[in-house]
Amino acid sequence: MVREIGFWKRDKVDSAINKLFDRLKALDVEEIDVFSCQSYVLAEDVYAEKDIPSFDRAAMDGYAVRAEDTFGASPTNPIMLEIAGNVEIGEIPDVVVESGKAVKIVTGAMMPKGANAVVMLEYTRDSGQFIEILKSVTPMKNVSRRGEDVKAGELILKKGEILQPQDAGVLASLGIEKVKVYRKPRVAIITTGNELVELGSKLEEAKVYNSNNPMLFNALAEFGFDAVNLGIARDSRKSIADMLEKALSYDAVLITGGTSVGHRDIVPEIVSEYGEILFHGVSMKPGMPTAAAVADNKPIFMLPGSPAAALLSFYTFALPALYRLMNVRIIARKWSTQKGILQGKIPSEIGVRSNVRVLWDGGNVYPIRISGSGVLSSFVRANALLVVPEDREGYDVGEEVEVTLLRDITEVFE
Amino acid sequence: MVREIGFWKRDKVDSAINKLFDRLKALDVEEIDVFSCQSYVLAEDVYAEKDIPSFDRAAMDGYAVRAEDTFGASPTNPIMLEIAGNVEIGEIPDVVVESGKAVKIVTGAMMPKGANAVVMLEYTRDSGQFIEILKSVTPMKNVSRRGEDVKAGELILKKGEILQPQDAGVLASLGIEKVKVYRKPRVAIITTGNELVELGSKLEEAKVYNSNNPMLFNALAEFGFDAVNLGIARDSRKSIADMLEKALSYDAVLITGGTSVGHRDIVPEIVSEYGEILFHGVSMKPGMPTAAAVADNKPIFMLPGSPAAALLSFYTFALPALYRLMNVRIIARKWSTQKGILQGKIPSEIGVRSNVRVLWDGGNVYPIRISGSGVLSSFVRANALLVVPEDREGYDVGEEVEVTLLRDITEVFE
Repeated sequence: MVREIGFWKRDKVDSAINKLFDRLKALDVEEIDVFSCQSYVLAEDVYAEKDIPSFDRAAMDGYAVRAEDTFGASPTNPIMLEIAGNVEIGEIPDVVVESGKAVKIVTGAMMPKGANAVVMLEYTRDSGQFIEILKSVTPMKNVSRRGEDVKAGELILKKGEILQPQDAGVLASLGIEKVKVYRKPRVAIITTGNELVELGSKLEEAKVYNSNNPMLFNALAEFGFDAVNLGIARDSRKSIADMLEKALSYDAVLITGGTSVGHRDIVPEIVSEYGEILFHGVSMKPGMPTAAAVADNKPIFMLPGSPAAALLSFYTFALPALYRLMNVRIIARKWSTQKGILQGKIPSEIGVRSNVRVLWDGGNVYPIRISGSGVLSSFVRANALLVVPEDREGYDVGEEVEVTLLRDITEVFE
Repeated sequence: MVREIGFWKRDKVDSAINKLFDRLKALDVEEIDVFSCQSYVLAEDVYAEKDIPSFDRAAMDGYAVRAEDTFGASPTNPIMLEIAGNVEIGEIPDVVVESGKAVKIVTGAMMPKGANAVVMLEYTRDSGQFIEILKSVTPMKNVSRRGEDVKAGELILKKGEILQPQDAGVLASLGIEKVKVYRKPRVAIITTGNELVELGSKLEEAKVYNSNNPMLFNALAEFGFDAVNLGIARDSRKSIADMLEKALSYDAVLITGGTSVGHRDIVPEIVSEYGEILFHGVSMKPGMPTAAAVADNKPIFMLPGSPAAALLSFYTFALPALYRLMNVRIIARKWSTQKGILQGKIPSEIGVRSNVRVLWDGGNVYPIRISGSGVLSSFVRANALLVVPEDREGYDVGEEVEVTLLRDITEVFE
C-alpha cells in the first residue's frame, strides 16, 4: 500500500535527491558532432592525438632569421640582412634561411628551415633588397613552437565535462569531429485531472486550462531536453495506467496532479505497480506532496498539481535526476559568479579591460599561464573568467576576487 | 580608408557596446506558440482577459456549507448538517446548499450555489446521511474566490520580458495560445584565412583546422540562436566580398580573422564598402582587434582569429547586440545570485525547506504575498527565489539575503 510508504513521513530534500542518485544509472553513450555538442555530457576522456601547433610558426609579423645573425643589433647599429623570400600563412616555405638572410613572414605562417626566431616588423627597416635589423632576438623569440599549446598524448577534456563552445574549438583544432557523450533523456509529460482542458479547446464552466503541460515543456527546453506531451489523463485507474505505460517508452516521466492525500489520490498507487516508490512527501514548501519512483532506470516524478509547486519540484528533484542519467551531478553552474582567494598576481593596464582565464577550485583562484600561442588550451584548462575593469591595475595575491564560471562544475557518478 | 578610423584609437568596451545599441533597432515581431516560447522576448504587454480562478472554488477537501450554519460548532458541541450531495472537480454542481445542508467537495471543485465556505474534512465527522461539524467557519473560509489570483484586465507580462516556463504556465491558464515576440536573429558565420582547413578534411602541412567555426556555432546554440556556417573565405577581396554578400541575407554576421593591422588586413576594408564601421579596436584583452559595422540594421562583427579572443569578443560585443535586435538589454541573468535587503519578514518552519518567491529590485527584496490560490500569479509577480534552508526559522526585515533570479532582468530599448 502506497499510503503506508508515508506521505507524512516526509523526506528531507537532500535525502530524497540522494535516493534518486543511488537508484539511477547513466544512459547509453552516443557519438555527437563537434558542431552541435553544446550542453552534452562527455562520456570519455579526450586525449590530444597531435601537437598544437603542429609545426613551428611565427608568433608575430616580421622577418624569420637566424637569431645569431641579429646579436648586437640596435637602432644605432642596425644589422643588414638580405631578403631571401616571403612565407604566407598556410604555405610550406620554399626557402631556407641561411646565415645573413631573412625571410618575410606573417603571424601563424610556418617557420622556414634555417630560421629560429622572428624579428618584429616594428624593429626592422626595409631598404629594398635588404632589411635593417634594429633589435637583436634570442633563439625561438616570437616563434610558437610545435606542441607549445597542446602536446600529443595530453589529456584535453575529462569525462563528465558538460561541453562548451571553447571545448568545440579545442576539439576541432585537434581534428576531432565526433565525441562520445551520454544520450540526453527524452521526457514524457502527463497531466492528470478531470478539471483540465487543453489549451486551444473551449473552456467549459468549472474547468481550467492545462497550464502545467506548457510550463514543463518550456522548463525542459530551457535545459535542452526534448519533451513529449502525452496529454491529460483522466482521474481513472485505466486512463492513468494506459498513459503511464506509453510514457515508460521514454527515459523519464513527469506526472502532475493526483499526489496529495485525498480520495482521488490514485497516481502513486498506480505508479507503484510499475516501479518502486523512492519517496512520497518531501520537507519542502511548496512541493510537499512530491513523489518519485524508479522503473527500470526510468525516474517517474509525481509533481503537485499546483503550477508553482510543480515547477519548483521539477527544478529541485527532476532536473538533478535528468543530469544523473547523463552521469553527472552539477556542483556549480556556468555563468554563476563565485568568490575565491587569488593565488597569483594579475597585472593589468589602466584603461584596458582584461579577461583573465583562471581556475577556480571552490575556494582559490589560480591564473592560467598563457605562454606564446597557448590561448586555445588556456580556455579548457581554465574554468572561470576574472574580469579586471578598466580602472584597475590588476589584482594581488591573496585578494578575494569574484570570478564568472565558464563551464559547469560537475562530479561524475560512475 | 578603414585604417584611419583608428585601430589604435581604441574604443572603451562600454562605449563600443553603446555604439551598437544606438545604431541597431529591433527585428520584426512574430507570433509564437506558448508551448515553445522559452527564451523569446515578449513584444507586447499581455493583459488577462479573464479572472483566475474563473469561478469560486473549494481551496480544501471537505464540505461546502453556509458559514452561518456552523457558528458555535466545536468538538464538544458538534452541529449536524444533512449531506445533500457531492461535487467532483471539473463538474458543474447539480445541487444547491440550503440551510442545514452540506455538500461534499474536493479542492479545486466549483462551489455549489448557496454555499459560502468549506469546512475541512479534518473538522467533520461522518455519520451516514449526516455530517457533524466540529469547527465553525467564517464566510469565504477555504474558498478561492473568482479573480482572487488574477483579475480580468490586469497586466500580466510586460513587453521585453524574456519568456520563462512560469510565464508559459500563466499564459496557458489564461487560455492564451500565442504571444507576440521579437524574431530571433539568424546569424551567419564566416571564417577567413588561407591556412584554414574545415574539420573532416585532410590537414596538409602548414595548415590548421578551422576551430572558430564550430566554437561560434555552439556559442550561438548556447543562447538559442540559429547559425549558418558559410565556410572559409580565402584571403582575397573577391572571396571575402562574395561571402559577405551572402551573409547579409541573414540578420547578423560573425567574421573571424583578418582584423589585425597587417598587410593582409582586408576584412574591415571590404566590410566598410557594405556598411558603416562603428569601431575598430577596443580596449580589451584579449580581443583588442575586434571591429564592428552595421549595414541596414545588420551588425557585422569582425572577431580576432585567435579562438580565445574571438569567443570573448563574441560574448562581450556580439551577444548584447543580438539581444538588442530583440529590443532588450540584459541587466542580470536568470539563475544568477543577487544580494538585497529583505523588506518583509519571512517565517519558515524548522526542518522544512521553503522556496519563497520574492521581487528583487537591485537592492531590496520584497516577499510576494501569496493569498489563497494565488500561487500562479506569484510566479510572474516575483522575479527571484529566496530559499530558506531546513535549519532556519526564516529571515527578518532588514537582513541581507541572497536570492536566485527566476528570470532575466531586462531593459527595453524602444
